[in-house]
Amino acid sequence: MDKTQKTYAIGVDLGGTNTVFGIVNAQGDIVAQNSIKTQAYSTAESFVEAGMACLRPLIDQVGGIDNIAGMGIGAPNANYYTGAIETAPNIAWAHERIVPLAQMFSTQLSTLSLQHGEAKPQTSTPFPVKMTNDANAAAMGEMAYGAARGMKNFIVITLGTGVGSGIVVNGQLVYGHDGFAGELGHVIMVRGKEGRLCGCGRTGCLETYCSATGVARTAREILTTSDRPSLLRNKPVDQIESLDVSIAASQDDEIANEIFQFTGKMLGEACADFTAFSSPEAFIFFGGLCKAGDLIMKPIEESYNNSVMPIFRGKAQFLISGLMNANAAVLGASALAWEE
Amino acid sequence: MDKTQKTYAIGVDLGGTNTVFGIVNAQGDIVAQNSIKTQAYSTAESFVEAGMACLRPLIDQVGGIDNIAGMGIGAPNANYYTGAIETAPNIAWAHERIVPLAQMFSTQLSTLSLQHGEAKPQTSTPFPVKMTNDANAAAMGEMAYGAARGMKNFIVITLGTGVGSGIVVNGQLVYGHDGFAGELGHVIMVRGKEGRLCGCGRTGCLETYCSATGVARTAREILTTSDRPSLLRNKPVDQIESLDVSIAASQDDEIANEIFQFTGKMLGEACADFTAFSSPEAFIFFGGLCKAGDLIMKPIEESYNNSVMPIFRGKAQFLISGLMNANAAVLGASALAWEE
Repeated sequence: MDKTQKTYAIGVDLGGTNTVFGIVNAQGDIVAQNSIKTQAYSTAESFVEAGMACLRPLIDQVGGIDNIAGMGIGAPNANYYTGAIETAPNIAWAHERIVPLAQMFSTQLSTLSLQHGEAKPQTSTPFPVKMTNDANAAAMGEMAYGAARGMKNFIVITLGTGVGSGIVVNGQLVYGHDGFAGELGHVIMVRGKEGRLCGCGRTGCLETYCSATGVARTAREILTTSDRPSLLRNKPVDQIESLDVSIAASQDDEIANEIFQFTGKMLGEACADFTAFSSPEAFIFFGGLCKAGDLIMKPIEESYNNSVMPIFRGKAQFLISGLMNANAAVLGASALAWEE
Repeated sequence: MDKTQKTYAIGVDLGGTNTVFGIVNAQGDIVAQNSIKTQAYSTAESFVEAGMACLRPLIDQVGGIDNIAGMGIGAPNANYYTGAIETAPNIAWAHERIVPLAQMFSTQLSTLSLQHGEAKPQTSTPFPVKMTNDANAAAMGEMAYGAARGMKNFIVITLGTGVGSGIVVNGQLVYGHDGFAGELGHVIMVRGKEGRLCGCGRTGCLETYCSATGVARTAREILTTSDRPSLLRNKPVDQIESLDVSIAASQDDEIANEIFQFTGKMLGEACADFTAFSSPEAFIFFGGLCKAGDLIMKPIEESYNNSVMPIFRGKAQFLISGLMNANAAVLGASALAWEE
């Protein structure tokens, strides 16, 4: 099958609540889309069956499976090499087991291809399905349709509940020898006992400070250890979220600004270390926290240029994702299907 | 020119004192070798001229230039992309200027090829010459002939006067967008003012603690702030070198063992962060400090497995270079010539 003759790719965003199926053209437009509830199924088999029922009409809308180059899936705990979800704690049918989801969808889609293509000899090749984690899919999406078009060395950092990353070197995603590389949320920024406890079981990880959750944690720390006035005091301290900090900072609240300075300084210092590794052309930030715009991006870039080795100073770009308003996860996953 | 038909490669180790030219076969044996003094020339042109005079008889020994696939040079401040030495402070003819050394040698070797090959049409292609820094050349050498044969994701860490690194991802060296990636000696291990001052102008870099120089610095710090007995006190404190620490540790000296524990712990913690980046199959250590063997390697591996994210625990190998007793720099540089 010559992918260059295919016009569309399927992108799947498998999240904790919904699984979105989209058909994407080469320009990065989602031309058809539908979704199912991820958790409404007790087995992986019934999930795939429901997924196929959702997909079939979308495939028909673009003239059938022969127009589609392949399918990409972005999913938690996905291993690119094996095409399996490996013991994802938040998905009932993938909890404590290894689900070869790429293979399962490929089998179904190959059957579809065979039915449609009748006796064509090329349909004996399995329909290509690739899977990776959400942050890696985001990096593929930026490279295919977003802020990293034309770049060969860049790092996408997602600032959400956690801090995720997708690293591209020489135009290729970095998966490492085991498929789990690119966990930049878990480099240690505060060594020793004073580091914050992380969900990974260790202390001091970047993500405990610079995720949306980490920002809220910083806010609570400052508010409970001082009595300085702040707009953030209008809400019970245990209910403060990163969005509240963004809103307060945009109203020039001193403590909120301090929180963004602290967060940006640490992100900039972390990026300086990442540059010693792969010297990317750009750092691309994605996720809710980026909506704060310059309030977070300026401190990151300033801290980076103060921290990085002199030979790298001023070279890297600091960008906000080019896919923030689109369905980035579906686009990113679909980009996997265009890979060589 | 089809490289697969060529039997030999030229490897050049351009150091501060000597420049060694070697002819290497595909098995990694140096079959001919000679050297010139790096600093005996006032201009890059006269250096290249002397280099060619040194090289020509070696090339003749292996039956002429047509048997040679290409040349690789390992040199300080070398940029792989431009093939130039960029303002190397320790080389008189490259100080405060950019010397396109790969191009200069290529021109000379192409002429040789043309003379030898007479009217053969393929000789109009320039003779391939590539250049990179010492640590990257070491990584190429390990992949071609050393401890990393068959590996696609690994990191070489050189523990010498400084700490250098060569990172391989998906079978390719990581050069970054500007050619200067892989400076793992300059990730920050101690943040804030208490970090040691580094030659790069910043404080707290890995290299200030874990290079041979850093180990001697640690020894001096401990010896001058305590009066505990140690074999290391047999020498004036300002003359202690890392080799003295190795010798004392091998005689079970308490302070010397403590120094290796401290150094290994930090290297292990640094490697844990590197794994979050590229999840290599192996870390390969090179340089004088490795002669301490298990005294340094065991603390590194132990600290790594205590520090790394649970999903990576116990997966990476910790190896000593497979090229320690060979002329590793020449072999490493020659490996550049076999690259696709």
